[in-house]
Amino acid sequence: MAAPGQNVAVVVHRAGDLRLENRPIPEPGPNEVLLRMHSVGICGSDVHYWQHGRIGDFVVKEPMVLGHEASGTVVKVGSGVTHLKPGDRVAIEPGVPREVDEFCKSGRYNLSPTIFFCATPPDDGNLCRYYKHSASYCYKLPDNVTFEEGALIEPLSVGIHACKRAGVTLGSKVFVSGSGPIGLVNVIIAKMMGAASVVVTDISASRLQKAKEVGADFIVQVKNETPQEVASKVESVLGCMPEITVECTGVQACIQAGIYATRSGGTLVLVGLGPEMVTVPIVNAAVREVDIRGIFRYCNTWPVAIALLASKRINVKPLVTHRFPLEKALEAFETTKRGEGVKVMLKCDPNDQNP
Amino acid sequence: MAAPGQNVAVVVHRAGDLRLENRPIPEPGPNEVLLRMHSVGICGSDVHYWQHGRIGDFVVKEPMVLGHEASGTVVKVGSGVTHLKPGDRVAIEPGVPREVDEFCKSGRYNLSPTIFFCATPPDDGNLCRYYKHSASYCYKLPDNVTFEEGALIEPLSVGIHACKRAGVTLGSKVFVSGSGPIGLVNVIIAKMMGAASVVVTDISASRLQKAKEVGADFIVQVKNETPQEVASKVESVLGCMPEITVECTGVQACIQAGIYATRSGGTLVLVGLGPEMVTVPIVNAAVREVDIRGIFRYCNTWPVAIALLASKRINVKPLVTHRFPLEKALEAFETTKRGEGVKVMLKCDPNDQNP
Amino acid sequence: MAAPGQNVAVVVHRAGDLRLENRPIPEPGPNEVLLRMHSVGICGSDVHYWQHGRIGDFVVKEPMVLGHEASGTVVKVGSGVTHLKPGDRVAIEPGVPREVDEFCKSGRYNLSPTIFFCATPPDDGNLCRYYKHSASYCYKLPDNVTFEEGALIEPLSVGIHACKRAGVTLGSKVFVSGSGPIGLVNVIIAKMMGAASVVVTDISASRLQKAKEVGADFIVQVKNETPQEVASKVESVLGCMPEITVECTGVQACIQAGIYATRSGGTLVLVGLGPEMVTVPIVNAAVREVDIRGIFRYCNTWPVAIALLASKRINVKPLVTHRFPLEKALEAFETTKRGEGVKVMLKCDPNDQNP
Amino acid sequence: MAAPGQNVAVVVHRAGDLRLENRPIPEPGPNEVLLRMHSVGICGSDVHYWQHGRIGDFVVKEPMVLGHEASGTVVKVGSGVTHLKPGDRVAIEPGVPREVDEFCKSGRYNLSPTIFFCATPPDDGNLCRYYKHSASYCYKLPDNVTFEEGALIEPLSVGIHACKRAGVTLGSKVFVSGSGPIGLVNVIIAKMMGAASVVVTDISASRLQKAKEVGADFIVQVKNETPQEVASKVESVLGCMPEITVECTGVQACIQAGIYATRSGGTLVLVGLGPEMVTVPIVNAAVREVDIRGIFRYCNTWPVAIALLASKRINVKPLVTHRFPLEKALEAFETTKRGEGVKVMLKCDPNDQNP
Repeated sequence: MAAPGQNVAVVVHRAGDLRLENRPIPEPGPNEVLLRMHSVGICGSDVHYWQHGRIGDFVVKEPMVLGHEASGTVVKVGSGVTHLKPGDRVAIEPGVPREVDEFCKSGRYNLSPTIFFCATPPDDGNLCRYYKHSASYCYKLPDNVTFEEGALIEPLSVGIHACKRAGVTLGSKVFVSGSGPIGLVNVIIAKMMGAASVVVTDISASRLQKAKEVGADFIVQVKNETPQEVASKVESVLGCMPEITVECTGVQACIQAGIYATRSGGTLVLVGLGPEMVTVPIVNAAVREVDIRGIFRYCNTWPVAIALLASKRINVKPLVTHRFPLEKALEAFETTKRGEGVKVMLKCDPNDQNP
Repeated sequence: MAAPGQNVAVVVHRAGDLRLENRPIPEPGPNEVLLRMHSVGICGSDVHYWQHGRIGDFVVKEPMVLGHEASGTVVKVGSGVTHLKPGDRVAIEPGVPREVDEFCKSGRYNLSPTIFFCATPPDDGNLCRYYKHSASYCYKLPDNVTFEEGALIEPLSVGIHACKRAGVTLGSKVFVSGSGPIGLVNVIIAKMMGAASVVVTDISASRLQKAKEVGADFIVQVKNETPQEVASKVESVLGCMPEITVECTGVQACIQAGIYATRSGGTLVLVGLGPEMVTVPIVNAAVREVDIRGIFRYCNTWPVAIALLASKRINVKPLVTHRFPLEKALEAFETTKRGEGVKVMLKCDPNDQNP
Repeated sequence: MAAPGQNVAVVVHRAGDLRLENRPIPEPGPNEVLLRMHSVGICGSDVHYWQHGRIGDFVVKEPMVLGHEASGTVVKVGSGVTHLKPGDRVAIEPGVPREVDEFCKSGRYNLSPTIFFCATPPDDGNLCRYYKHSASYCYKLPDNVTFEEGALIEPLSVGIHACKRAGVTLGSKVFVSGSGPIGLVNVIIAKMMGAASVVVTDISASRLQKAKEVGADFIVQVKNETPQEVASKVESVLGCMPEITVECTGVQACIQAGIYATRSGGTLVLVGLGPEMVTVPIVNAAVREVDIRGIFRYCNTWPVAIALLASKRINVKPLVTHRFPLEKALEAFETTKRGEGVKVMLKCDPNDQNP
Repeated sequence: MAAPGQNVAVVVHRAGDLRLENRPIPEPGPNEVLLRMHSVGICGSDVHYWQHGRIGDFVVKEPMVLGHEASGTVVKVGSGVTHLKPGDRVAIEPGVPREVDEFCKSGRYNLSPTIFFCATPPDDGNLCRYYKHSASYCYKLPDNVTFEEGALIEPLSVGIHACKRAGVTLGSKVFVSGSGPIGLVNVIIAKMMGAASVVVTDISASRLQKAKEVGADFIVQVKNETPQEVASKVESVLGCMPEITVECTGVQACIQAGIYATRSGGTLVLVGLGPEMVTVPIVNAAVREVDIRGIFRYCNTWPVAIALLASKRINVKPLVTHRFPLEKALEAFETTKRGEGVKVMLKCDPNDQNP
């Protein structure tokens, strides 16, 4: 257990103002656990809060600890906690409902309007040495799953939730628009769910190369094509129109391409977020019964991801391209901002910097 | 059986050119039946072909018989027909797949790209005295269901398909945008499926009055409100946000209102069709997991509608506000064009002009 | 607020030993409310615990308060309760999960193995004057819904959950086997969900008469028929095989009849519980893809039921055939045991014995 | 094209009477194709008709050609066929609906009561040199899929349909009961659909070894265990109860074990067929909401299987353990009857005996 004052945390104060500072070590409540953090990935949203001080209506008004892709070790358990004990290695689901409302009761707790969520203002994240969390949203990692795999469950969960909402199933032909980290996890998950072929588009050849590495069957580098032309290329490489499109860029032209590209009766899932208002060929989607579905984070994905990771059927290790000790967090954020690599991992435990 | 030359038909030749003319009485193929037509409703699309000669990419290039909301009596059956015999009264499903493709095999035959559809160019409709049709898409009417109820199954089917795609179920709160004939059938069907409350919006007080008559719990007359204001009013009268919105106008502002109005995790079904491109608050829909689903006509609805009509649980008779004998079809079309009443029925059998 | 010692409760001590006794008035925890009970229905399971001291593996080892079909008024709220306040009239969902396990997170909290459930040993029920309950599982009643309607939500919920699991939808033909209280609520709910016709079987003509009253389209009194003969009669009165059978008796021959009766591709829902092992024509079900699904209580039904009751679309008042003040609980239990009427209501509030 | 009289066929006349005989080469109808058969697998049902002359109510009354796991080459097309041409290599779906009934229209054509099905009396199969079939149920094979893979789509389809009905998805834990050919395809497909772990039980160590080879994570050899003990072992090796059980033996004790083994809220799919009546712990299934679902053959599986085979993500070649030229069909049937190997393939084209 660290001495008081040793809970180093990465805190954003306002746009452009990111600091390493000490926070008190929290005391877990009856249904909480205190965790010694091990590995925390940097997400695009962390960088966005640092750069802009806000995402949409979520504004950093008070200093906020960043980080929500995380794993750690239980060091203390609240009085009501029975399924965890000190020493357990866990992955952390960052969203914890505050109320048992109808969204929770019906299995869609991610939509609960009062949910706590790490590093979404005003809720603190877990990019720090010590962090307390609801025990029910900490999931024990099997011995054969590393801490970094545990931390990667968060981005994986976006892919799992998106592919589930998309209805990816055996034999699906899938178009993933955008080859950043979220595009990549969608490729991985779509293949895991039995997709017969996955095509990925991006403007960056190097990002597309990464898509190939994680399992994409086809890659298409796009440039100045119209949305209809992109749709044609997708159909051409697949040999048919995809039943499912997972749009990960949020760019208007890409959403349009997603509609044109998707087979009648299929589904376009919107994962990437762009401008508030977009102009889309809605009649084209409607009369071909192409469903347009968004996702908000995820729910019920941690147990799925852990089962997959434990079975060794899924390899997410190549996603981690950079590692920094927590003390070098600012350098890590600069690296992420420059768009280098795929996933930057911060190592929070000075005594264990292993994956 | 009528003498040759007595198959009076309502034929559109080009925009603005609608004629009553004689057509030969067709001979049914092995899997077809010849029908003596009884009641055929006029649909907005019939009027549109007459006025504009096209709907989107469907262009009237050759003279085309109008009509697709129809019922009649079997007068002759093809050699392979076993489930129908002369004298059977039937309702006609106007869409008949030409191929057994994957859409058909998987139960979504309405999406089959080569489907035959009455009064969609170049396929002739059934607003005439004698008409042949695939026997598999003619459904026997029970004695206690009238011909006009049989003809109304077509517009009812739009409501059934929309409400099924919307997932209306017990206790649903439903917002129907637009109170024309299609809005009305959606009100009727949503209530039948167990919706707890249905609110309808329109700009016309008289159309809203009709919504009240067919079962709407609340009506809201809209004027110059912003989409957000419409959404607020809907929430206010329902006492909560609706899980389901059925948009029947196709107007951009109404689609926007539909997104803002729908509860997180709910569904917006697009039934009305407007301009090809529309600007919508897609992020608002996406991050609240409000699904946007269109419909293309319908499938698997005739047996459902017949069971309901036979059970006397549903009363569609008030929808028929005008009747004309086939000979006065042009007058009937003028009436429909003027937007009078709800549904105009043409009576094709000179010996039986009853409902 | 009642004085100490005035919390009269109906307590089963062991098989055959039912007592009225005083219990302390409980103090609500932070997320709980204290309720002054108003109306509590007697369920078959209450009588069973009284008569046999057990149901399956659930054994009355300590004295247990009975009652779980209940409504009352909030008299005190815990410190964390925000959506209720003293004076609110509420219906009580008797099952409250103790843990946020995977069943809860995925919307099937009724399957949570550690769930608290009123009047299932060792958990006390609410057939008493004062009772505390999780605020999240107390649902505010609109002014136009009576306390007795609120108490009837519990049996209604069995019907809602059964019909949802059965997939009852617009136009369904439904066979309800058994015309006791649970059969009746299934008739009511199936019709509300759009079923075109419902047939009910029972051995009792008087119970069948009640089915007619609540909306059954057909009733069939059975006697010594074989299961296949029952299936034939059902098909005969419906004019076709039902897509859905809701079996409410638990009797082996009735389960067999349910399988034979159900249309290929349909669903048999098992609501009634009988002997542990039953012999069934499993191949007949399997090769016709007739799904066999049980239900365990219900989940996510209170908001649905309240919306329906508030809309006045559903009339459950005829189900209440007897009323007794709480002090005459033993007499009320004797009445229920004799199988008189449908639902016996106990009135717990000495100052308000209204429905 | 072969000369008249050269259509060698494997014909069962009655129980125990299997003959090689000449049949006329059929002429395809307008929507049919004539095929030169290439590879036809022997199914347990073929052997059963040969040994017993019947399966349940299906009785061999007239001599019947066996065979329904087949692929071949188009040699002639009917006048209405557009998507196939002579020379196309195709896999044959053996079930072809004769009517466009409600089962067909709703996407469950396998349940159509009048369906044609190869080698189910009185319909002839395709274990012969030349065979005609509905063009809509012949699926073009990509160049990189062999004829034998094409023939194996039929048994694969049983697995696809079973796993789809079971709801296998990402992270599922699956228990496959029985390690014969159908158990094996279920293992393959469950893994393809993202199952995290699959455990297989059988009494035969050698059959279990095959399960390991095709991807089972765990195997359990059973002997005299009670059903509850089998369920315990399954839970023990998986580390949790499986959400899904696929029962492929039809044995009563195995069905019982399947119920006990399956997690609450899960699904037991019955693939194996045994005695007409079985005794099962139905209350155990019902109160834990374990759904029991059968399968009848399959529907909509060929396109899925072809997409998977073309993607090279699935390897079914190890399933073929024996090959015989069509002339040695009787020897091939004897081999199958003895239970040797997994799948015996008959090679019908004297000029091409390749896989």
